[in-house]
Amino acid sequence: MIKILISLLCCAVLFTVGILIGHYGIPKSSSPPPSWVLEVSKDVDESFIETFLSEVDNLRIQDNLKELTKVPHMATTAGDEQTVQYMLKRWQDPESGLDQAWREEYKVYLSFPDPKNPNKVTVVSSLRVKCPTLASHPELPVSVSPSGEALHTVQEKEKNYTNSDQNDPDVVQPYAAYSPAGHVKGKLVYANQGKPSDYLHLNRTVDLRGTIAITRYGGAGRGAKAINAAPYGVVGVLVYTDPLDINDGLMSDVNETYPHSWYMPPSGVERGAFATNYGDPLTPYLAAKEETYRISPEDITGIPPIPIQPIGFGDAQRLICELGGDAAPDEWQGSFHCKYNYGGPGFKNTSTFKESDVQMNISNYGEVRNSSNVMGVIRGSVEPDRYVIYGNHRDSWVHGAIDPSSGTSVMLELSRVLGTKVKQGTWRPRRSIIFGSWGAEEFGLIGSAEYTEQYLPKLSQRTVAYINVDIAVFANATLRASGMPSVQNVIFQAAKQVDAPGVDSTSVYENWLKYSNRTSPEHGTIPRMGYLTGAGSDYAAFVHYLGITALDMSYTYDRSKTNARIYPAYHTAYDTFDYCSKYIDPGFLSHQAVARTAGNILIRMADSLVLPLNCSDYAESLEDYLKTAVSLYQEKLQTWNISMEPLQSAVANFRKAATQMDQMIHSSDLANETPLKVRKINDQLMLLDRAFLDPLAFPDKYAFRHVIWASSSAGKSTFPGLADAFASAESPGQPSAWGKVHYHLSVLSQAINSAADMLVEVI
Amino acid sequence: MIKILISLLCCAVLFTVGILIGHYGIPKSSSPPPSWVLEVSKDVDESFIETFLSEVDNLRIQDNLKELTKVPHMATTAGDEQTVQYMLKRWQDPESGLDQAWREEYKVYLSFPDPKNPNKVTVVSSLRVKCPTLASHPELPVSVSPSGEALHTVQEKEKNYTNSDQNDPDVVQPYAAYSPAGHVKGKLVYANQGKPSDYLHLNRTVDLRGTIAITRYGGAGRGAKAINAAPYGVVGVLVYTDPLDINDGLMSDVNETYPHSWYMPPSGVERGAFATNYGDPLTPYLAAKEETYRISPEDITGIPPIPIQPIGFGDAQRLICELGGDAAPDEWQGSFHCKYNYGGPGFKNTSTFKESDVQMNISNYGEVRNSSNVMGVIRGSVEPDRYVIYGNHRDSWVHGAIDPSSGTSVMLELSRVLGTKVKQGTWRPRRSIIFGSWGAEEFGLIGSAEYTEQYLPKLSQRTVAYINVDIAVFANATLRASGMPSVQNVIFQAAKQVDAPGVDSTSVYENWLKYSNRTSPEHGTIPRMGYLTGAGSDYAAFVHYLGITALDMSYTYDRSKTNARIYPAYHTAYDTFDYCSKYIDPGFLSHQAVARTAGNILIRMADSLVLPLNCSDYAESLEDYLKTAVSLYQEKLQTWNISMEPLQSAVANFRKAATQMDQMIHSSDLANETPLKVRKINDQLMLLDRAFLDPLAFPDKYAFRHVIWASSSAGKSTFPGLADAFASAESPGQPSAWGKVHYHLSVLSQAINSAADMLVEVI
Repeated sequence: MIKILISLLCCAVLFTVGILIGHYGIPKSSSPPPSWVLEVSKDVDESFIETFLSEVDNLRIQDNLKELTKVPHMATTAGDEQTVQYMLKRWQDPESGLDQAWREEYKVYLSFPDPKNPNKVTVVSSLRVKCPTLASHPELPVSVSPSGEALHTVQEKEKNYTNSDQNDPDVVQPYAAYSPAGHVKGKLVYANQGKPSDYLHLNRTVDLRGTIAITRYGGAGRGAKAINAAPYGVVGVLVYTDPLDINDGLMSDVNETYPHSWYMPPSGVERGAFATNYGDPLTPYLAAKEETYRISPEDITGIPPIPIQPIGFGDAQRLICELGGDAAPDEWQGSFHCKYNYGGPGFKNTSTFKESDVQMNISNYGEVRNSSNVMGVIRGSVEPDRYVIYGNHRDSWVHGAIDPSSGTSVMLELSRVLGTKVKQGTWRPRRSIIFGSWGAEEFGLIGSAEYTEQYLPKLSQRTVAYINVDIAVFANATLRASGMPSVQNVIFQAAKQVDAPGVDSTSVYENWLKYSNRTSPEHGTIPRMGYLTGAGSDYAAFVHYLGITALDMSYTYDRSKTNARIYPAYHTAYDTFDYCSKYIDPGFLSHQAVARTAGNILIRMADSLVLPLNCSDYAESLEDYLKTAVSLYQEKLQTWNISMEPLQSAVANFRKAATQMDQMIHSSDLANETPLKVRKINDQLMLLDRAFLDPLAFPDKYAFRHVIWASSSAGKSTFPGLADAFASAESPGQPSAWGKVHYHLSVLSQAINSAADMLVEVI
Repeated sequence: MIKILISLLCCAVLFTVGILIGHYGIPKSSSPPPSWVLEVSKDVDESFIETFLSEVDNLRIQDNLKELTKVPHMATTAGDEQTVQYMLKRWQDPESGLDQAWREEYKVYLSFPDPKNPNKVTVVSSLRVKCPTLASHPELPVSVSPSGEALHTVQEKEKNYTNSDQNDPDVVQPYAAYSPAGHVKGKLVYANQGKPSDYLHLNRTVDLRGTIAITRYGGAGRGAKAINAAPYGVVGVLVYTDPLDINDGLMSDVNETYPHSWYMPPSGVERGAFATNYGDPLTPYLAAKEETYRISPEDITGIPPIPIQPIGFGDAQRLICELGGDAAPDEWQGSFHCKYNYGGPGFKNTSTFKESDVQMNISNYGEVRNSSNVMGVIRGSVEPDRYVIYGNHRDSWVHGAIDPSSGTSVMLELSRVLGTKVKQGTWRPRRSIIFGSWGAEEFGLIGSAEYTEQYLPKLSQRTVAYINVDIAVFANATLRASGMPSVQNVIFQAAKQVDAPGVDSTSVYENWLKYSNRTSPEHGTIPRMGYLTGAGSDYAAFVHYLGITALDMSYTYDRSKTNARIYPAYHTAYDTFDYCSKYIDPGFLSHQAVARTAGNILIRMADSLVLPLNCSDYAESLEDYLKTAVSLYQEKLQTWNISMEPLQSAVANFRKAATQMDQMIHSSDLANETPLKVRKINDQLMLLDRAFLDPLAFPDKYAFRHVIWASSSAGKSTFPGLADAFASAESPGQPSAWGKVHYHLSVLSQAINSAADMLVEVI
């Protein structure tokens, strides 16, 4: 009996062992899941984001800035090359963790003052001297009198205060890039901001032929101030920054302006590109390589037809306060303690300048120069053919501490933290990350534009998003962000995870909400994001030419404390490390907050299983634009028998498709679906903005193809092509222009319907 | 002992049973591979292709054709609607297996003759009669004399021979669509093919002002014959098909032409669209929906500025053989048994028509009409967001048995076979298949063009290939195929698996090789494929506007047996079921061979794990074009300091990238890789042609954006923009045009480099 029991026990044991061996010991003939099954379904790792946030170091950002601002680094100069070398050193360092870094060169057409023959602006006695050497130039609009007595000479360089930065021999003289050279002389007039309406108004009182117009920054693009003037016979333009617009009215460098505060000293001058279009001016739509076809410099469009020169407000005050003629309107008045008159034309009879002319001797020249982008890459593990691009320009006008080196310092820090993780083998992004340090942005976003022209097909097919952080910190009050509406959610999500600098227990998000907010029908009160409707930084080519989803961010002002149109040292020789570390962001905590927020977004874009792009938020913006368009235009359009119904129905289609897409994403267990289903959804989200491109919609706007976000001159918060066409049709004598309004309605309806088609079930 | 043995045996059995239970009975806790792992790596099933080939039925194709050709089905007529209903019935039938079928309507601008006021061409005595009713139209170039005595009247309809097809009241009168209406009269001249050189030549001998020119088909586009004439003051144009060009010289309907053979009878007239551009003429770049912005009909470009009318060669012979003036050159002579003279202008003095004019009374009118595409879809199982589109137009000029119903009959048969498999649950394609039955092709590829305009973003992002089979069978000698070079390989592969009709033990491929071949550096002697450089059928919008890889195929002529420029019944009332089944493809075996070949390609495009697109074959074509360009242009370009090196280096880059891509595909075990790696490769291949698009390269060519395959007037087998720019720069007085040659070199180099960038490792 016991034997039997033992036998049975043995059998039972053997049976059990058999089962165990069978189950664990023998591999199933249906092989186990391939190793990539888990990898392809991995989502963003929140603990990795926490680690990233904790490792972003404000002092390293400060060190980066110190290094980058040692010398002036205007595009294509020796100082620029120094920064190229620095970026390459950082990103090519095997310790950096980047997979590759390299430079890409373009041969681009830039404009410079002649150091041997600096630009001069003088007040000269109007005594006309015969000048036989110029008889051969009868086309010059005014007689030129180099021998006229100089009663006043505008300062040629900015004053040095506390350190030698302003004395660096490589500080470029203030000038207007792409202003033509020329020697012109005329009676001075004051033309406010140089808008079309300003010249129109001024010309009613003063005969502008042969005059020099002085204008203040703001209201119109730089180049526009000269372009708008030329049709009236104005022969030259001066431009300055009024203390009203930049210094909250303060003017004295004895105790008010830098080095006593962040305000611009009287000799400070904003430099800038005076070209309207972006990209290399000689190679439209083509990457500017050695043998690329170039148009003739005379055929460049959108640049000043007459000389223009920026000057400091110290000199501008001297000139404006002496002007004769009638008093200009209240809206034209600035901060100088005098009445701003139109000009007689020219100066008051009571002035020491009476009957004098202003003489401009401008010697700018154009030249094709080598400009470099520096690129760095972390290859994606699962979807290397999907790119998240993060970029900023590298070139400045002078030392460029804020513009752009604050952004570059942030980029270097976040690439350091991410690269270190790659190097350690603890992380690699799902998608590829491309860092771009663009060249020659200050001359018209040239490096980034050439990059997009060269690589258009692959960038447009593969880029998930472009993140631009140019000036990282304008001021240290609050975050500011702009972008396509679809990125709002990921910006908010990231901003909620970052502590606001200088405010206890408050997130960047909560702090932002206090400074700038709006009410969203779907989300309630939320921070107000901007749109990327212009070409203010390197996002332009990505947004407007390629239709790539993009965002731009920075820390910025407390508007209750300043009305400055931009930080006062902008594009001057005062934008230095000293200025930044004393007045903009002492301690670099705002830089750190931007690095954390932007880096957080970058990681989410690169690692999320489903792209963090929200199409319902896009729908909300379209509905908002539509509402404005209907209220502004519908009544008038009905009188021309033009229906807005197709546009309304397109926006409704988009909303419906967006809602369905959201529901589909939320109701699916995507981590357990075929990776091709996730890819399908991600492609729909990634390519959504491409549907809004129309290369023919704006024949007069260079490389503006995105029909929702293109620039507009109508000043309405609605669809740009429609707004501009409507404004132009409404102006007198344009009855046939209503066809163009109808055309833009059709373009928009088709584009929005196409975008909706991208979101609905694929077939 | 035995007990022990039995016990041991029992134990052994139990142990084994245990192992078996353990292995098979208990699921592993590490879950098995998800069910989709195998599915996503599945490749094309060769046995399925064999089944498909065996089930394609020639008699069903014949039945389809009979049904489709019951009545004339010119675009937007009742007959067209009948075919819409038939397609919908077929594809919406639950037994069809298609997942969905529907119609899409566009409102398009077509041009028709007025049935109440048919177009008339007469020879009238030149006696001028005052016509007071026309005094208010002084702009008419010639006096109009409706009361002139008619000495000869051109036949208004085609003669009926064997059945009532030609007598159907819905046979549209021969006319030139988009010819303006007008009543013009003048002396007749003979202008050969109406090319620019023909009018230039003719005008040296004859004062063309006020004349009517008779031209023959061929040499220039239909509309061009009138567009080229107008600058010389020609007031009207006739066009006919010379028996030399269509009938191998035969003319008599007593025993030579249809119904005795496939040749065109004397009263046969080729109708056609006389518009140069494709797509709806009133809505360029916009889908022609109800409320879409429309240009004014007066603003349509590329249509005849003067009346033009096609006539039969019977009438043409009567007119031409009576012409006076000098004898035209040998190359201008046709098959009529008389000398073709220039015209005095006008007829010989010995003619009964002497001193008579030709009078054209053309009453064509334009109208916006509803045109439908019929769409049918089989949804893809693994990658529904990848489309293989297969299409053909549905509309004809009259009964359209060959053009286009032969192609539609083939499409219906292959959609039947595939749909049946889906219905049976034995097959579903990996990628989605979209069938398109386009409307209004005959008026300028309108249905397919509007479709691409409406869905541009999603089609361009998702379409793997477009397969066009319009006229499936021109003649039954051999296959003919055109397409991007990347589809050569899959066409060959498919053609090798199909038996050639009427030739024992010979594949379609081997048969093709005998009729037309070339030597490839890589493949040796292979069949010669054509390129899709024009806008001859509905592939145009896919190739030239969207840059989608496409192919077009048909069975065609034995060129040793005929010189006919096209099958002789083309666009006449003789293109009927009777004609097709008697003279083009009795037994429908050539139709079957085309259905098998095209269907085979369709299945491979839809089911292959790696897309069957070969980029090395693309490289070979680029190298071929480059070689021609260098030999034709380099020497001259050097004298203008324009280097071809960037183009040479771009083509070399492309070759290198293509070789690497091929190696990568062949050396990878893609079925065991992550599906995202396969998708990456497929995206690179699918989107390759998109890199060749430039929406600004050809501002004068509507919707031509593909810089390799755009149309060209230079007649060289090389890059079209370069060839045209070079030809224009070489013409006298164009020194500045060399810049445009340089521009096109840069456009090409950038596009080819971009395409190479698509193929190299993604980052």
